[in-house]
Amino acid sequence: MPAQRRLHLGAFMRPVSIHTGAWRYPGAFPDANFNIAHLRRFIRKLEEGKFDAFFMADHLAVLNMPIEALKRSHTVTSFEPFTLLSAFAGATERIGLVGTASTTFDAPFHIARRFASLDHISGGRAGWNIVTTSNPDAALNFGHDEQTEHAARYRRAREFYEVVTGLWDSFADDAFVRDTASGFYFDPERMHVLDHKGEHFSVRGPLNIARPVQGWPVIVQAGASDDGRQLAAETAEVVFTAVNSIEAGRAFYTDVKARVEKAGRSRDHLKILPGALVVVGDSLDEARETRARLDGLVHEASAIAALSIALGVDASSFDPDGPLPEVPHTNASKSGRERAIALARAENLTVRQLAQRLGGYGGLSFVGTPQTIADAMEEWLVTEGSDGFNVMFPFVPEGLDAFVDKVVPELQRRGIFRRDYEGTTLREHLGLPRPPNRFFPDA
Amino acid sequence: MPAQRRLHLGAFMRPVSIHTGAWRYPGAFPDANFNIAHLRRFIRKLEEGKFDAFFMADHLAVLNMPIEALKRSHTVTSFEPFTLLSAFAGATERIGLVGTASTTFDAPFHIARRFASLDHISGGRAGWNIVTTSNPDAALNFGHDEQTEHAARYRRAREFYEVVTGLWDSFADDAFVRDTASGFYFDPERMHVLDHKGEHFSVRGPLNIARPVQGWPVIVQAGASDDGRQLAAETAEVVFTAVNSIEAGRAFYTDVKARVEKAGRSRDHLKILPGALVVVGDSLDEARETRARLDGLVHEASAIAALSIALGVDASSFDPDGPLPEVPHTNASKSGRERAIALARAENLTVRQLAQRLGGYGGLSFVGTPQTIADAMEEWLVTEGSDGFNVMFPFVPEGLDAFVDKVVPELQRRGIFRRDYEGTTLREHLGLPRPPNRFFPDA
Ligand SMILES: Cc1cc2nc3c(=O)[nH]c(=O)nc-3n(C[C@H](O)[C@H](O)[C@H](O)COP(=O)(O)O)c2cc1C
Ligand SMILES: Cc1cc2nc3c(=O)[nH]c(=O)nc-3n(C[C@H](O)[C@H](O)[C@H](O)COP(=O)(O)O)c2cc1C
Repeated sequence: MPAQRRLHLGAFMRPVSIHTGAWRYPGAFPDANFNIAHLRRFIRKLEEGKFDAFFMADHLAVLNMPIEALKRSHTVTSFEPFTLLSAFAGATERIGLVGTASTTFDAPFHIARRFASLDHISGGRAGWNIVTTSNPDAALNFGHDEQTEHAARYRRAREFYEVVTGLWDSFADDAFVRDTASGFYFDPERMHVLDHKGEHFSVRGPLNIARPVQGWPVIVQAGASDDGRQLAAETAEVVFTAVNSIEAGRAFYTDVKARVEKAGRSRDHLKILPGALVVVGDSLDEARETRARLDGLVHEASAIAALSIALGVDASSFDPDGPLPEVPHTNASKSGRERAIALARAENLTVRQLAQRLGGYGGLSFVGTPQTIADAMEEWLVTEGSDGFNVMFPFVPEGLDAFVDKVVPELQRRGIFRRDYEGTTLREHLGLPRPPNRFFPDA
Repeated sequence: MPAQRRLHLGAFMRPVSIHTGAWRYPGAFPDANFNIAHLRRFIRKLEEGKFDAFFMADHLAVLNMPIEALKRSHTVTSFEPFTLLSAFAGATERIGLVGTASTTFDAPFHIARRFASLDHISGGRAGWNIVTTSNPDAALNFGHDEQTEHAARYRRAREFYEVVTGLWDSFADDAFVRDTASGFYFDPERMHVLDHKGEHFSVRGPLNIARPVQGWPVIVQAGASDDGRQLAAETAEVVFTAVNSIEAGRAFYTDVKARVEKAGRSRDHLKILPGALVVVGDSLDEARETRARLDGLVHEASAIAALSIALGVDASSFDPDGPLPEVPHTNASKSGRERAIALARAENLTVRQLAQRLGGYGGLSFVGTPQTIADAMEEWLVTEGSDGFNVMFPFVPEGLDAFVDKVVPELQRRGIFRRDYEGTTLREHLGLPRPPNRFFPDA
């Protein structure tokens, strides 16, 4: 292990907390998810904490829950990623800005252009979280009767990525000569017309924007199935994963890093960042109390709805006090189903217990003091459970402020997190190379 | 005529000048079209000049010109509207932000959501310039072999508008109760599921964002054909038009205002703003010299290319010194073709002369002193040639600074332009009502 290995930290927000009780916590801002003034404050605080990036999840429909749960969800109204991240670009100077965009319900030309534009506007801080969209209700908002089948979504995603990166390479970096004397604005020899014709897309190009500052915005991937991992290994530079334990983390890390090498890439060029809900207290008891109080704000209807989403089946007919029954395979998220089943087995949870955990946030979580949290993060780093984390805050502003003011200094003291930004682009923060232009390898 | 009638001024930019020689003018910023720092300076200057709005044109392909012309075009690299306007939202406080978005190559759910998000981020300053996209090359970037036929594009646009405005009305303004005690974030009785099923679109809804601050962002329309005018009469609140003379302006004004009334709307609820290139000098001669110098920077290849676009046919085989020959009808812009033919006839221009005029900017233009420019604008206003203008600057920063520093004070002195913003939203600047929610007329 080289001595200088350090954590990479993203903040995973949508655009605030994942926890469904977050907006009700005493002192939290109930409108935080949807108040641009609050959000500007949060992104600046993250930058003060030297985070690599703000990660914005995204969904193309209101979450598919029963109305009893939906009406309690603060995520029902949310900003759209491109508009919000572009607004953030002007409010910050260094922090990376990662937006989620679906390959199932958008066009490669639009996605290539918007991320290129965001990358230029932010001076090289954009990242694209490629998702295939698991919420079946999204399909209904885009003229489809039902969600496309899982493997087909991933095939489309792979080709979508090829087209987008090809469009980003439309111009060599030195194409724009802007010679006022001759009147030549750019050199057409340094422009490439993609002319892509594939299974899903036919896109001529070129893109009508210069190559992004970073060459390509950083590619992020969040699917966890076999197809998802393979797409990550071939394309991603950051994997955002949901693993529940350090053992699961190490297994995932080993598997995906091996796939990366098998795909002919350097294992260092893909960073694995599990999501982790971090609840900070001055004592262990205080932190645990906060978590318990927060989970207590989750309504049972939301809890059962979350369980249904995770399993891909309606869980409201299950006996709440019984164990989790056999659950059939569906066309929704495979990894979510496996995670839920594993959690129920591992902790021997009833349906209600499982639902309440998932309804708040059922994934990996560090609940403790700045020291115990830093201990845990260091262990993950040192034992190759991960390359860092996508931190989730239990509520804002307090949960976020506590992390930046208390946990970050402890990580810095240990030498496992930067004291200041060393570069200006997201690639530089992450230690990733700038990809060469495939059509102009010399430039 | 009520005494208080005043001009409305938009700045039409893409994102800087329309004139193809703009970037080469002495003192102009050659990279102005693509430098976020310059652009922030320009938008702030427009706000200092109390402009109603910044209007951003947009194209979904590099302009379809021969490479000899394209390589001289500063518009080949341009920011994408949603990202740029969102960045501007944070750099300004009052000015409206109008973005062009195509109904031919995007999905209503995306467009509804992005404009709603921009409207919230900007505190109610968004506008949507609905275009059907005339550049046939755009089709090739979105999987089509050729551009959809003109009338079909407009039918799709009409239904697209219905879906988008319906999605904006997904939530009553009072839907979000955010009651931390009960845990109800919103009232589902105040949410409407659109369930649209039409000829072109099937969209379930609801939109996953609160109703825009303005109810709906301001609807802008730029097509000039019969279909275009009819769409404007039924839907638009601002019409951006290209008319070449005050007579043509009055005819257009009379026709469109009559159509608005026939559609059952108030004629005051649609503002007609012709585009006008404004070249300011301290004397008439100085202004004319500037214009001549600017046109002189347009290369013949660009000139012929512009003529080809306007006519919808390849003009490079025409005799440059002869009169304009008969030109066949095509599937491209109808109004562009008619304009070019009328201009050639009116001024008895050769093909080369016509091409050079169009290659720079062939539309309406005011070239003069602050007094003569104000005289002309006042005449248009008073005689119902228009409700204001979409001002185009010959080059930046100088052309923009000259307009704000010299012409705006003269308009203010005459009482035909605001001295300060009176409201905070684009609707307020334009004197437009906030549309009621069609599903919740009480709220
Ligand atoms: C940690 C994580 C975060 C995700 N975030 C999003 C998101 O923001 N939006 C979305 O539509 N899908 C999101 N997904 C869904 C994935 O893109 C994918 O469609 C889904 O996980 C099914 O693929 P899988 O079986 O490979 O996991 C996420 C998945 C994971 C594991
Ligand atoms: C003044 C004006 C500005 C326009 N701006 C754009 C634009 O920015 N992007 C675009 O794709 N089309 C633009 N158009 C094209 C129109 O949306 C429309 O597709 C085209 O004019 C053909 O329709 P028409 O025959 O009704 O004019 C513009 C048209 C006019 C008249």
